[in-house]
Amino acid sequence: MLSIAIIGTGNVAEHLFNAFLQPQKVRVVQVVGRNKGRFTKFSSEATTDDFTQIGDADIYIIAVADDAIAEIAQFLSQKNGLVVHTSGSTNMNTIQNENRGVFYPLQTFTEGKPVNFDSIPICIEAQHDSSLKLLHNLASLISKKVHEIDSQKRKKLHLAAVFANNFTNHLYGIGEAICQEIGVSFDLLRPLILETAEKVQTLSPRDAQTGPARRGDAKSMENHLNLLKNKKQIELYTLLSEAIKSTYEEKL
Amino acid sequence: MLSIAIIGTGNVAEHLFNAFLQPQKVRVVQVVGRNKGRFTKFSSEATTDDFTQIGDADIYIIAVADDAIAEIAQFLSQKNGLVVHTSGSTNMNTIQNENRGVFYPLQTFTEGKPVNFDSIPICIEAQHDSSLKLLHNLASLISKKVHEIDSQKRKKLHLAAVFANNFTNHLYGIGEAICQEIGVSFDLLRPLILETAEKVQTLSPRDAQTGPARRGDAKSMENHLNLLKNKKQIELYTLLSEAIKSTYEEKL
Repeated sequence: MLSIAIIGTGNVAEHLFNAFLQPQKVRVVQVVGRNKGRFTKFSSEATTDDFTQIGDADIYIIAVADDAIAEIAQFLSQKNGLVVHTSGSTNMNTIQNENRGVFYPLQTFTEGKPVNFDSIPICIEAQHDSSLKLLHNLASLISKKVHEIDSQKRKKLHLAAVFANNFTNHLYGIGEAICQEIGVSFDLLRPLILETAEKVQTLSPRDAQTGPARRGDAKSMENHLNLLKNKKQIELYTLLSEAIKSTYEEKL
Repeated sequence: MLSIAIIGTGNVAEHLFNAFLQPQKVRVVQVVGRNKGRFTKFSSEATTDDFTQIGDADIYIIAVADDAIAEIAQFLSQKNGLVVHTSGSTNMNTIQNENRGVFYPLQTFTEGKPVNFDSIPICIEAQHDSSLKLLHNLASLISKKVHEIDSQKRKKLHLAAVFANNFTNHLYGIGEAICQEIGVSFDLLRPLILETAEKVQTLSPRDAQTGPARRGDAKSMENHLNLLKNKKQIELYTLLSEAIKSTYEEKL
C-alpha cells in the first residue's frame, strides 16, 4: 500500500485525488491546503490548512501554482518520503529535498468535469532510480501512458501543450466572437471543433491540414481579410496563413 | 420522394451521398463528375462524367471546388429544379439559375471517415421562399440542426470556421513539431487536444481560457519564448499571447 499526501486543493489536486480513490494499492492519507473551503471536494479522513502539520507518507504530491512550489516544498524538507510536483514547466530541482521528482499529468482539468485518467499521459522524473520506479508504479495504477521525461524535455512538451491547448482555445474564442458579431450561436462551430480534434487522434496534423492557406488560394484569403475588422484578428489571420504556407513550401 | 442529382465526387459529395442513403423520402438519382475513378465511392445507379447528360431532379447539389461552381452551374442553366452549392464562402448568386440556393454543411470531411450528420449544422439559403422550405425539408432529413443563413453571414461563419478548424490544426502541427524536436510521440498531446475541444462543447471559450497569457504570467511566457527557435513559432507565440491578454483586459 502506497501512502500519499496531496499538498494543494485546486483542480489538479482534486482530479488526482479522485483518480487515486479507485486503485486498492494506494491511499491518500492527507490533503493539505490553505483554502479550507475546498476541503469538501476531498473525502479524505485527514485535511489540514496548517503546513507544519503534514504527516508521514511515501509520496508527497505538491499540486499548487508553479511559483508556490519552492515555498511549499520547504515545509517538507525534513521528510524522508519522495517529494514531487505536478508542473510541466517547473524544474525538478525547484524542490530541494534529496529525494525529489516530478509527476506531471499532461491534461487540462476543469472543475467538476470528470476525466478518464486511463489515457492521460503521466510524465515522470526522479532524482533516484528507486524513486523513478516508485513513481512508475504509482502512475501505472491510474494511467496506461507513463513516460519518463526529464525537466528540459518536459518544459518543451509543456510549451507544445500551450500551443495545442491555450492558443487553440483562443482561436475557438475568435470563432465565437465572429459568431456573436453576426448573431448566430457558437453551437454552429462546436461540431467542427470536435471533429477537428478527433481527426488528429489518428492523422498527423501535417496531413490533416486543409483550407485556403494550405491550397495557396490567395483570392479566398483576401476575401477573408476584407471581412475582418479587429486588428489582432487580422494580424493572426495573416501570420497563421503565412505559417501554414511556409510549412508546406518547406516540404517541397 | 425528393430526387437529387449530386454534381461533384469529392469528400463533401461522398459524405452527402452517404447521408442521403438512409432517409426514405430522398433518392440520389445521379452522380456527375469528371473523375470516373471516384464513381466507385457512389453506389448510385446512374453516374456520368458528361456534364451535358445531367438528367432531371428536384434538387441539383453542386459540391465542387469554390472556383468551379459558376462554370458547373452553367450546365444546369436550362433546368427547372433547384440548383444549390455547398460552399461556405461563395455567394448564392454565383449560380445564375433563377431557382438557386445554398446547402452548406458546416463540418470538415475526411475521406473514408464516417461522420454523424445528425449533429452537423446545415446552413441553407434560397432565392425563393418555396425553395427555402424545400431545402429545410431536405436538410431536416439528415440533420437536427438546420439554420437559415444569408450569403453575407455565411461568409463570416466560414471565416470563423477557418479559425476554429484550419488555424487550430496548424497549432496542433506546431505541437507535433515540438514533440518531434524532443523525440517524444505526438500521442502525448492527443488526449489534451481532444479534451480542449470537448471542454468548449459546453463552456464558452472565453470562460475556458487558461495558461500563462491568461494569468498574465510574464515569467513563464519569457521562459517559453527562450525555448523556441523557429521564427514563425516565436511570432505566433507572441501574437497569440498578446491577443489573449488584450481579450481579458477589454473585459475589465
